[in-house]
This record gives sequence, structure tokens and C-alpha cells, in this order.
Amino acid sequence: MSTAIDPQAPLLSAPKVAKPRRSTRTQLTPKDWIEAATDLLVQRSVDAVNVDSLAKTLGVTRGSFYWHFSDREALLTRMLQSWRDAATEQVITRFEREGATARDLISELLSLPFRGRAATRASSIELAIRAWARRDELARKAVDVVDAERLSYIAQCFSALGFDISEARSRAFVLYAYELAESFLSGQGTDSQREDRRLMIERLLLRPV
Amino acid sequence: MSTAIDPQAPLLSAPKVAKPRRSTRTQLTPKDWIEAATDLLVQRSVDAVNVDSLAKTLGVTRGSFYWHFSDREALLTRMLQSWRDAATEQVITRFEREGATARDLISELLSLPFRGRAATRASSIELAIRAWARRDELARKAVDVVDAERLSYIAQCFSALGFDISEARSRAFVLYAYELAESFLSGQGTDSQREDRRLMIERLLLRPV
Repeated sequence: MSTAIDPQAPLLSAPKVAKPRRSTRTQLTPKDWIEAATDLLVQRSVDAVNVDSLAKTLGVTRGSFYWHFSDREALLTRMLQSWRDAATEQVITRFEREGATARDLISELLSLPFRGRAATRASSIELAIRAWARRDELARKAVDVVDAERLSYIAQCFSALGFDISEARSRAFVLYAYELAESFLSGQGTDSQREDRRLMIERLLLRPV
Repeated sequence: MSTAIDPQAPLLSAPKVAKPRRSTRTQLTPKDWIEAATDLLVQRSVDAVNVDSLAKTLGVTRGSFYWHFSDREALLTRMLQSWRDAATEQVITRFEREGATARDLISELLSLPFRGRAATRASSIELAIRAWARRDELARKAVDVVDAERLSYIAQCFSALGFDISEARSRAFVLYAYELAESFLSGQGTDSQREDRRLMIERLLLRPV
């Protein structure tokens, strides 16, 4: 048989092959469904998250969804729960580690939005969940709980630095606002402008009243 | 004929009647289509914005859409344009009015997120457009332009107060971040906590370095 290269085949493009289908559908975990659902939420919207689309994306039958979830509503609840858990875990890992000073934690928080692709992905998920929360009570509650928890840990840092409770809460709000804005407004400013504003806000927030 | 009330009819429920259809479909303007499309964007997502749904919502035929727009893409472009125009007009009306001092403008900006239902509606539209911008280049450009324009006017206010250019830009970013956070995190804090943080950020941002 000839092994000659097809002259019609485009250079540098992958051959079109069917996506491999999972042969052992029982190996899919609830986490796989939740991740695929989160992708759909970001790429489309919560309306696009349904059993048919997910089964198709994961290459399994519709039926296998019901091994893990009673219905679509149960999946949506688990998605939000999983986002909340990850956010809470992240907060606890960051703030409750031994030896970190309040000052370190604040500097670290200020540099968070700059950490590459993972940060972009996380902020796309957050934006999608916040947009969903505008029209869904369950999503709104999840967002409120996550925001409240983050704000409350940041406020503790400012309290540890000697600010009174009300002042610490206000400063926490400003720091959190800055973090959200850096992640949502990723197109604004050059690297050096971003660095300028990070230094300025650190100075503003740490200076005593 | 009997006028007796149907004993099977439920109490306190409106009779089921067909929604009135517009008799004069030519009276619909592009603005009507754009507003209906924006509602769909907020309530569902950009995927839900299509000619069929819109025609149904507005009670007109599919065909009448094409009197105003060549296709769905043209409508999406006009939606973004219309949001940008409104944002730009708002910025110019606010910042270029006679007699307003830079100090007044900054105080006014800090109190903006608290202005009721219109503010909530505007922030829901912004969130929906920002979520859409994560997966669409056209939407991303519109968001970047609006953010840049708002930031640049706020920076001018800080320049007018005597801050140097880089410092003015950084302070503008913090003020804008605070505004966005108050509008996106509407569930956080009591009225008096909100008032505390507004006063604190005003103090922080107006104080010279």
C-alpha cells in the first residue's frame, strides 16, 4: 500500500477524527458532570446546562446522568455547592496557614488577580455565576455566602493590623472590590499601570487613619 | 342566557386570554427590538436572543424583524452599540456639565450605586454583557471601550484635584472598582455599613499622598 502523504491535506492541521467515546461509562464521577456543566455555564449560560448536552459532551448516554443526580435541579445545586466549597477551601487554606502574618496575607491578596490562566478561568466562572445569580435565588444565595466569607476573612486581617472593626470591614470591602475589578476588567491598563495601582492601593489600605 | 358564574372557575385568578397582538407592526422601532433583546440577554443569555423569541415576545411576525436588521448578528451589534452609546452619553452628561467641580463629581460617583431600581437594572445589564464578553470578541471590545472611557473621565477629576497622572489613574481605578463592587455585591452589608465604607473610601481617595 502507498504511504504517500495526501497532497490535498492541509499543513499543520490535525486530522479529523471522531472524538473517542468513553467505553466504561461507570467511571464518570459526579465531579466529571459538574465540571462539564460548569464549562457549559461559562461558554453558554445556565439554560444550556441540560442532561442531553452534557451526555453528548461526555460521550455517554442520558441515562447515566441519573446514576449520580436525581434531576437537572440537583446538578445545578451541586454545581453551586462545589463552587462554594472550592471558594471556602481556598479562603481557609490561604488565611489559616501557620506563620502567615496579616500583612503578608494582604500583600498576597493584592497580587492574586495577576496569576495567569487559572485566574482567568476562575474569574470567568465567577462572572457566569454572578450573571446567573441575577435571576436565580439559589445562585444568588451561593454568591452572597462566598462574598460574605471572603470579606470577613479580609476584615480579620485588617483587625489584626489594629484597625477598629468598622474601619477593618470598610477596608476589606475596598480590597475585595479592587481584586474583583482587576479580575473582571482584565483589559484595562498596561502591566506597569497595573503594578502602579497595586502599590498605590497597598499604601492606601495599610496606612492608618 | 344564564349569567351565572362558573362554579369551577378558581377564585382570584385572571381568565386565560391570548396576549393582545400588535395590530400595527410597522410602529415597532429598532429601539423596541433592542430593548426586548436586552431583556432576553439579562433574563436568559445571548444564546436566547433570536428572531423567533423576539417576534413572539413583541407579538409580531418574524418577517418584521428584517425591516430593521439584516440578521441576528446585526441586532447583537446594535445592542452593544446602544449600551455603549448610553454609557458614553451618561459619562458626558455627568462630567461635562457646567459648574460641577471635580470634588462634586467624585462625591456623586461614590453615591451612584445606591440609586434604587434603575441602578439594579443597569447593573444586571452590565453583568450580563460582561459574562457574554468572556466568550465573544465583539462584546469584549464594547466592554473595554466603556471601561476605558469611564476610567479616563474619573482620572481627569483626580488630575484636576492636583494628583499626578499616574496617581490619578490609580485612584480612578480604585474608585471605579468600588462602584462596580457596590453594584455587583448588592447583598453585602447593612445600610449603615455601606455608608461607613462610602465615607471611608472618599476620605482615602481624596487625601493627598
